[in-house]
Amino acid sequence: MKELGYYNGKTAPLDEICVPMCDRGCYFGDGVYETTPSLNGVIFLLDEHIDRFYKSAELFYISLNFTKQDLKDLLYSLLALMDDSELMVYWQVTRGTAPRNHFFTTDEPNLWVMIRPYKMYDCCGPLELILHEDIRHQICYIKTLNLAANIFILEKARQAGCLEAVLHRNGRITECTRSNISIITNGVFRTAPTDNLILPGISRARLIVHCQRLGIPVEEIPFSIDELFNADEIIVSSSGALCAPASSIDGVPVGGKAPDLLNSLRDSIMDEFNSMVNAL
Amino acid sequence: MKELGYYNGKTAPLDEICVPMCDRGCYFGDGVYETTPSLNGVIFLLDEHIDRFYKSAELFYISLNFTKQDLKDLLYSLLALMDDSELMVYWQVTRGTAPRNHFFTTDEPNLWVMIRPYKMYDCCGPLELILHEDIRHQICYIKTLNLAANIFILEKARQAGCLEAVLHRNGRITECTRSNISIITNGVFRTAPTDNLILPGISRARLIVHCQRLGIPVEEIPFSIDELFNADEIIVSSSGALCAPASSIDGVPVGGKAPDLLNSLRDSIMDEFNSMVNAL
Repeated sequence: MKELGYYNGKTAPLDEICVPMCDRGCYFGDGVYETTPSLNGVIFLLDEHIDRFYKSAELFYISLNFTKQDLKDLLYSLLALMDDSELMVYWQVTRGTAPRNHFFTTDEPNLWVMIRPYKMYDCCGPLELILHEDIRHQICYIKTLNLAANIFILEKARQAGCLEAVLHRNGRITECTRSNISIITNGVFRTAPTDNLILPGISRARLIVHCQRLGIPVEEIPFSIDELFNADEIIVSSSGALCAPASSIDGVPVGGKAPDLLNSLRDSIMDEFNSMVNAL
Repeated sequence: MKELGYYNGKTAPLDEICVPMCDRGCYFGDGVYETTPSLNGVIFLLDEHIDRFYKSAELFYISLNFTKQDLKDLLYSLLALMDDSELMVYWQVTRGTAPRNHFFTTDEPNLWVMIRPYKMYDCCGPLELILHEDIRHQICYIKTLNLAANIFILEKARQAGCLEAVLHRNGRITECTRSNISIITNGVFRTAPTDNLILPGISRARLIVHCQRLGIPVEEIPFSIDELFNADEIIVSSSGALCAPASSIDGVPVGGKAPDLLNSLRDSIMDEFNSMVNAL
C-alpha cells in the first residue's frame, strides 16, 4: 500500500478511511498522538514513543484499552503492508465516540494510524526561523491534537518565508511549533527543562545522551531571547529532523560559531539512527 | 430526524455520518465552530453567530466558499428535517482534507453540522464553580475546535462536583471553560473586554444591551479574583445558558447580594429569547 489508514480495526488506503463524525477528536481535538519515522522496516525509537503516548493518554484522562505490546504489534503489522521502506508512522487515540459534550461521556477510545512515505533527510538543512510569542496552551507536556495555535504561528513563519518559528513566553524560549530548540554556548549544550511549557522531546532526550557520550556538558535551564541570538549554535530537534541547525531568526544570522561541535553531535545521533534502521 | 448530521452536502442520522480521516479537523483541530439553540423553528441570534463564524474563519485564514445566506438557508433546511422543536444547532468548518502537514496544503474547507434535542433551561440554575488558572492558548477570540485545555479543566471541575470552572490569568479573571463571566457590584455590570484572552460571547453582548436598556451601567474592564469573590452577583453566560448566576467558587458562597438586579437582567434577556422563538 502507498498510503495507509487504520481506524479501530479497519485498514484501507488512507484516502478511503472514514471515521464517525461524533468521534471526539473531530470537534474537540480530544486525543493524543505520536509520530516517528521508519526505515527498512524499523520504527525509530518506537518504545520511547509508545511510552510517551501512554503518558500523554494518562495525563489527559484517557484509559487505553490495549497494551503497549498490542500497539507495537499492530504498527509493525501495518508497516508490513507498505510499498515503501522510508515512511512516517503516525498514530493517535481519541477519547471515544459520543454526541458533543464537554464532559467525558465515553471511555471507549478510538485508535487511528496513518503511514505515509517520508524522506528523513528532507528537512535537516539549516533552518530560517521567526521569533514569535508562545501563545499556545500550557499543557504542552501532553501531546494533544490541539495544534491550532501551532499551525497559526507556523503560517506566520511561512508568510515570512521560513519553515519554523521559535517561541518565547515572556522572553523565555520554550520550543518551536513542532520541535524542541536547544543551544550550544561556550561548549555547553543548553535546553529548556521539561516542564508544562514544552513537549518532552524524544530527539531532545537522545541529544542529551549523545552530548554525554561526547563529553559535552548539558544544562537543562531556560534560556532567554538574547541567549538564543548570541548562542554559538542553535539546534532544532524533532522526530522528523533529529538535529537541524538554525541559521537565522527574523532575518538575523545566528549560530554557525561552533560547527565542529555541532557536526560531532549531529553525526553521533545520525549514526544511531542509521545503525538502528540498518540492524535488520 | 431525531439527531442529524451533515457533512459537505450529505445528510443522515448523526451516528451514521462519517468523515475522511484526513480532514484536518481530525488531527489538528484545524477549524472553527458555532453553536446556538433553536426553539419553534427559530435559530436564536443566528445572524450574530454566522457573523462571528465568518470572523473566526477569517482570523484563522480559512476562506469560506459559501455565503452567509447559503449557510443560513442550509441550517434552516436541516432544521426542517427534525422531529423536535427544542434543539441545539452546531456547525463547524475545517480547513480541508489533505495528508497531515502543519502547513496549509488545502483551501477547500469542509462544512459540518450537527443538530440534536436540547432543553434551553436545563443548565440555568445557580452554578457551583471552581477557580482554575487559565492555561488555554491565547487565541481565544477565535472559536477554534481546540478545546483540549477547556475539557481538561472542566474535568477537574467535575472531580470537585462542579459544572464549570472560572479561569484567571495571573489573577485576572478571563472567562469560563465554555462561557463568559461577568459581575454586578454596586449596581454596575462589569465584564472583561473582548481581547485575545476571551471569546466575544454573543450572550455577553446581549447582556450588555439589556443592561443599557435597564439603565444598569456597564464597564468592560478586567476584574480580579478578589473582585469576583466580593461581587454582589456573578453571571455566567453562554448561548446554551444566557444568564446563569454562580452561587459558589471552590465551595465558598458567592453572589446572591443583588437578586433584584440579577432577576431583572435575566428576565429581560429571557423575554427576548422567548419573543424571538415565539415570533413565528
